[in-house]
Amino acid sequence: MGHRIPRDQRVTTHVCLTARALGANGVYVSDTRDGQLVDTVMKVVDEFGGDFTVETGVPWRSTIINWKKSGGKVVHLTAYGVPLPNLIEEIRRASFDKMVIVGAEKMPGEVFQLADWNVAVTNQPISEVSALGIFLDWLFNHQMREEFPGARKRILPNERGKSVVGTV
Amino acid sequence: MGHRIPRDQRVTTHVCLTARALGANGVYVSDTRDGQLVDTVMKVVDEFGGDFTVETGVPWRSTIINWKKSGGKVVHLTAYGVPLPNLIEEIRRASFDKMVIVGAEKMPGEVFQLADWNVAVTNQPISEVSALGIFLDWLFNHQMREEFPGARKRILPNERGKSVVGTV
Repeated sequence: MGHRIPRDQRVTTHVCLTARALGANGVYVSDTRDGQLVDTVMKVVDEFGGDFTVETGVPWRSTIINWKKSGGKVVHLTAYGVPLPNLIEEIRRASFDKMVIVGAEKMPGEVFQLADWNVAVTNQPISEVSALGIFLDWLFNHQMREEFPGARKRILPNERGKSVVGTV
Repeated sequence: MGHRIPRDQRVTTHVCLTARALGANGVYVSDTRDGQLVDTVMKVVDEFGGDFTVETGVPWRSTIINWKKSGGKVVHLTAYGVPLPNLIEEIRRASFDKMVIVGAEKMPGEVFQLADWNVAVTNQPISEVSALGIFLDWLFNHQMREEFPGARKRILPNERGKSVVGTV
């Protein structure tokens, strides 16, 4: 939420790449349409695989409300929330599709009300990029996803250099 | 490494806030001096406590080499490295001061050589902000730091709103 062009383009790209690498299915960018952001992220998806989606310009309130109406749950990451370690078991156990909300400094108060959980990745000023990454890592029990189907390029672990295999 | 003004100011601020919130002692920003970045981060330190330091404009090569000469170890976070789960025990066990290097897309090859460990927080394109946050969270055994001495403001966990106590 709160994506502004050009101010947030790099940070929001980092949010999208983090979401993808840590196992999310896709990202909605609220209210602001940004074709350039979509292109940047979809280029990574095309090369490195997976079926990650990005949709920009979606209205935040109705997107959240519809998500909940279709049975999904909503996690809002905020330094003002309840510490992650206190909530993570309950969130993991909840077998619903989960939407994770992150955004700029000033979130509308309504988001705190609409969220099923307001979660603090530390009660300190932090970054929505690292908060999202750390949350997803905890959500998936620190089991990092290794396979991204359909990858045209793969990075192979290397102790001291770069190894990339491509199938283009 | 690779901080550019104004392009990276927001991302590098996120790197610094993430480092502080997840328990690092300080950040060096290589080569580029940036007083505005220092002001932004030190304002957070002044309000929320801890003794985090930020130094900008330090030359990267000699800073790394001097760190190692004084007995420190160096972790370089890169998608090209060895997966975090495979290295984390060895890194945790090493009782040396640790410097964690993150940076822009193009890192000099020399950094891969100077590093004691090249660590991949997933072998996928990700963000240096989330890579750093996830790495520090793993390094400290997922025990998030709660106390920041000298805080003038503290955020109290809240299920559905904002609670801040101040001592100003």
